Amino acid sequence: MQFEIRVRYAECDPMGVAHHTAYPVWFEMGRTELLRKAGLNYRDLEADGYMLAVVKLAVQYKAPARYDDMLHLETTLESIGNVKIEHSYRLLRDGLLLATAHTTLACLDRTGRPQALPEKLLHTR
Amino acid sequence: MQFEIRVRYAECDPMGVAHHTAYPVWFEMGRTELLRKAGLNYRDLEADGYMLAVVKLAVQYKAPARYDDMLHLETTLESIGNVKIEHSYRLLRDGLLLATAHTTLACLDRTGRPQALPEKLLHTR
Amino acid sequence: MQFEIRVRYAECDPMGVAHHTAYPVWFEMGRTELLRKAGLNYRDLEADGYMLAVVKLAVQYKAPARYDDMLHLETTLESIGNVKIEHSYRLLRDGLLLATAHTTLACLDRTGRPQALPEKLLHTR
Amino acid sequence: MQFEIRVRYAECDPMGVAHHTAYPVWFEMGRTELLRKAGLNYRDLEADGYMLAVVKLAVQYKAPARYDDMLHLETTLESIGNVKIEHSYRLLRDGLLLATAHTTLACLDRTGRPQALPEKLLHTR
Repeated sequence: MQFEIRVRYAECDPMGVAHHTAYPVWFEMGRTELLRKAGLNYRDLEADGYMLAVVKLAVQYKAPARYDDMLHLETTLESIGNVKIEHSYRLLRDGLLLATAHTTLACLDRTGRPQALPEKLLHTR
Repeated sequence: MQFEIRVRYAECDPMGVAHHTAYPVWFEMGRTELLRKAGLNYRDLEADGYMLAVVKLAVQYKAPARYDDMLHLETTLESIGNVKIEHSYRLLRDGLLLATAHTTLACLDRTGRPQALPEKLLHTR
Repeated sequence: MQFEIRVRYAECDPMGVAHHTAYPVWFEMGRTELLRKAGLNYRDLEADGYMLAVVKLAVQYKAPARYDDMLHLETTLESIGNVKIEHSYRLLRDGLLLATAHTTLACLDRTGRPQALPEKLLHTR
Repeated sequence: MQFEIRVRYAECDPMGVAHHTAYPVWFEMGRTELLRKAGLNYRDLEADGYMLAVVKLAVQYKAPARYDDMLHLETTLESIGNVKIEHSYRLLRDGLLLATAHTTLACLDRTGRPQALPEKLLHTR
């Protein structure tokens, strides 16, 4: 799934580049769009009692993103287990790779306990 | 109620100063501490079904705050009505006034409808 | 100038709605797009030594925005003086007015001192 | 270096817990305090032309942090090379481990090119 992101002024720091905490926010947007493309909606999943919590995050920053840059995010579903989902990400600007990342999400119930991922999510494999 | 805040790097923008959206986050911290001083806890209020939503925000920025500055925030309860609460704020660094602000909060129930403020909050007047 | 904004998960708070500090970030995006429509770019203005700092912010929150909502932001240039610029904002979802706001920006030089707005900005009137 | 952090309302998401992007902001605060304890100041380093950019971030989230929780962050300097610095982090609440993390920073000059770390930083080893 591919997705365009315009870097916001508020996302940039005194070095004049996007702060490193802006990237995982963009990755989360990538997951939202990937779900949408599969005909699903994370808002509905939460309403149904399925919370997807990030349990592992790894980012490698290779080149800075600047205010007003138009970025290109590729989000890939790497694996779906019984409880966990793994995604990888590639962030680019004009073909230049700015960052790569990997996340693991765990499916939790409303009380925060792990639960099996919902059936409909498994079908997005 | 007085409260010290250290400006975080992530709160600063390419101009090298705290972004204007960091200030209302600090004001919210001031309200949390003001409640705590009155023996109350906003987390408990929410658990009891009382949501305090910001319905009005006004900030005047007079001088910039920089990364690692230690700021001094004064939070004052201006008025408590049946449903609404008003606070004012003064943000200083070494006696220099950086910003003044005013907020109005409305008490909502879990469905987002206005409801009377809880008794125990009225006693903080 | 009209602009669509998708509410991000990271912008929402425990009440399940967009936190009140997300709105001024969106207004800043509206100003960026308004400038772009006038053939200008805020990034270039900064590179030329013209900093536009928010000196006044006023927001009225009327109805909540939720995660994944598609919002519609209208940004209007209200006035340009020698040093200051005023904008107003209307934020809507499906025709429902969620918030109105008003900002005043002041033009500063790299040392933070007020300076006259650049010629090319005056022509956007 | 040990450091207490109160979880802010604005840092929490619709699941009612601190959003996963709040953690790296706290780790950055831990690095600031670690430097301060060594008699240094990151603000001065930047003024001297030494930028420390995060080039690698890895976080493992084990248990959620909630609004108003008082957290305990341990920041450890793992290694200092010629250009890169590695830190590790342990975040706890009342002795319960909430997250562990690891970052690699690279020293850059004002143009974003790698440069040797300043002498005075090496002495913090």
